[in-house]
Amino acid sequence: LEKIAYVNGSYVPLSEAKVSVLDRGFLFADGIYEVAAVLDGKLIDNASHLARLERSVGEIRLELPETTARIQEIQQELVTRNQLVNGMVYLEVTRGADTGRDFAFPKGVKPTLVMFTAEKDIVGAPSARTGINVITVPDIRWERRDIKSVALLAQVLAKQAAAEAGAGEAWMIQDGKVTEGGSSSAFILTQDDVIVTRQNGSEILPGCTRKAVVALAEERQLRVEERAFSIEEALAAKEAFITSATVFVQGVVAIDGRKVGNGKPGPLTDRLREIYVEFAKATAV
Amino acid sequence: LEKIAYVNGSYVPLSEAKVSVLDRGFLFADGIYEVAAVLDGKLIDNASHLARLERSVGEIRLELPETTARIQEIQQELVTRNQLVNGMVYLEVTRGADTGRDFAFPKGVKPTLVMFTAEKDIVGAPSARTGINVITVPDIRWERRDIKSVALLAQVLAKQAAAEAGAGEAWMIQDGKVTEGGSSSAFILTQDDVIVTRQNGSEILPGCTRKAVVALAEERQLRVEERAFSIEEALAAKEAFITSATVFVQGVVAIDGRKVGNGKPGPLTDRLREIYVEFAKATAV
Repeated sequence: LEKIAYVNGSYVPLSEAKVSVLDRGFLFADGIYEVAAVLDGKLIDNASHLARLERSVGEIRLELPETTARIQEIQQELVTRNQLVNGMVYLEVTRGADTGRDFAFPKGVKPTLVMFTAEKDIVGAPSARTGINVITVPDIRWERRDIKSVALLAQVLAKQAAAEAGAGEAWMIQDGKVTEGGSSSAFILTQDDVIVTRQNGSEILPGCTRKAVVALAEERQLRVEERAFSIEEALAAKEAFITSATVFVQGVVAIDGRKVGNGKPGPLTDRLREIYVEFAKATAV
Repeated sequence: LEKIAYVNGSYVPLSEAKVSVLDRGFLFADGIYEVAAVLDGKLIDNASHLARLERSVGEIRLELPETTARIQEIQQELVTRNQLVNGMVYLEVTRGADTGRDFAFPKGVKPTLVMFTAEKDIVGAPSARTGINVITVPDIRWERRDIKSVALLAQVLAKQAAAEAGAGEAWMIQDGKVTEGGSSSAFILTQDDVIVTRQNGSEILPGCTRKAVVALAEERQLRVEERAFSIEEALAAKEAFITSATVFVQGVVAIDGRKVGNGKPGPLTDRLREIYVEFAKATAV
């Protein structure tokens, strides 16, 4: 059966889900998105995603066309209609379709709200067991990476380079330090058992899964330091891993072809993954 | 009568011109655009726009779905169908709509090609006589500004700031120097009659009108220096102006509220504008 998408108040087959060519998401990347995972038919950490959505739209002064409570209802309705068990709900809000193409904000135009779903077995993904290789690329993105906008061309190019190298992610490097992955947050576990991930700021996206993993680790008295780290430090680390809404916690076993630790996902990575899955299921809506 | 747009082989009313929500232009800003002016029903400097289109798509390894010769035919067909006398043709090519949302390039997906037109009296625009004010904003864009991608959110925010300040353009500043405007190239005329505009490179878009104006000025033995300049230098200049496909040459009469020259478009600006309009009409297709 064809999947259903949501477009500005209507539930339509995905193949018929369309937006105007004048939509500012299409013309200007003038839009914000979020991706929430679904486990056992429920949304994972969704309050965190909706809070970040509100923050992002606020930063570009885009008004949500629906309340976040209503957005969650639509997300859940899509999960139901698509009989989605495991996967994700994508949502995008743009500054709408004006009658012409002017850079400045249009007046009296209703924002566009689009959602669709995709199936993915996040918990059972083979890469959760095997870990992934990452490559490094220069971080060429704009200076407001804390805004989760659809202006993702730099990330597309980074992740394409990773795919061509047979890697699962690209770590982006600025001033000799890792900022984050193309679509994930970057972590290492140092030899003295400190979990290190870059501090939030305009250089990275404030990852929802990153935030939850940091909180869960701290609750368990694990030591966490939020600071930048280099590739040399990552290669000297016990473990490395990434977090994101659609992989949860995933081991990084090699960087640019050089092994991290023993070349397998480490015990802390596995433990944090289990802890996160437990948290995710317990708080799903 | 409703205007006609072109979407992937079909001519459709603009209100029905749509793309899939899975289009990578909408999801990832994974697309390139061009805007060509129309004067007296003919395309201005279009070979230059199509050459830049080919360059941009090459830089992100996106294949054009049609030859540039065919693209020009479609542009001309739209001008005819819309009885467009003065205005512009917008065109956008994206990496198409895949069946899902993966950052890496999809395989076997045909790129999307969209075009539409808009009316504008470029030659008779009042701002051509009065000039415009500009404001300055930090240049927060990514590092590949030479690629004319639709990842334009930084430019949207810059031009919105200009609009709110009652200015016609925002000059973006990096390391104390002007890079370019939100949708135009920046020029000054120094006190010793040197036309200065920033050299091409990854810091700016290689403007088609900029290129033509530089060539036309050099043909007339005017002195041109391609180098970066500061706002202080611009404020001490005889004249300042911008160039773009949809304004041609337009005087800048104030920067951040401070007058340039005598606060009116200068004689060289007016002369270059006339020379450009003459060139445009003579080479229109």
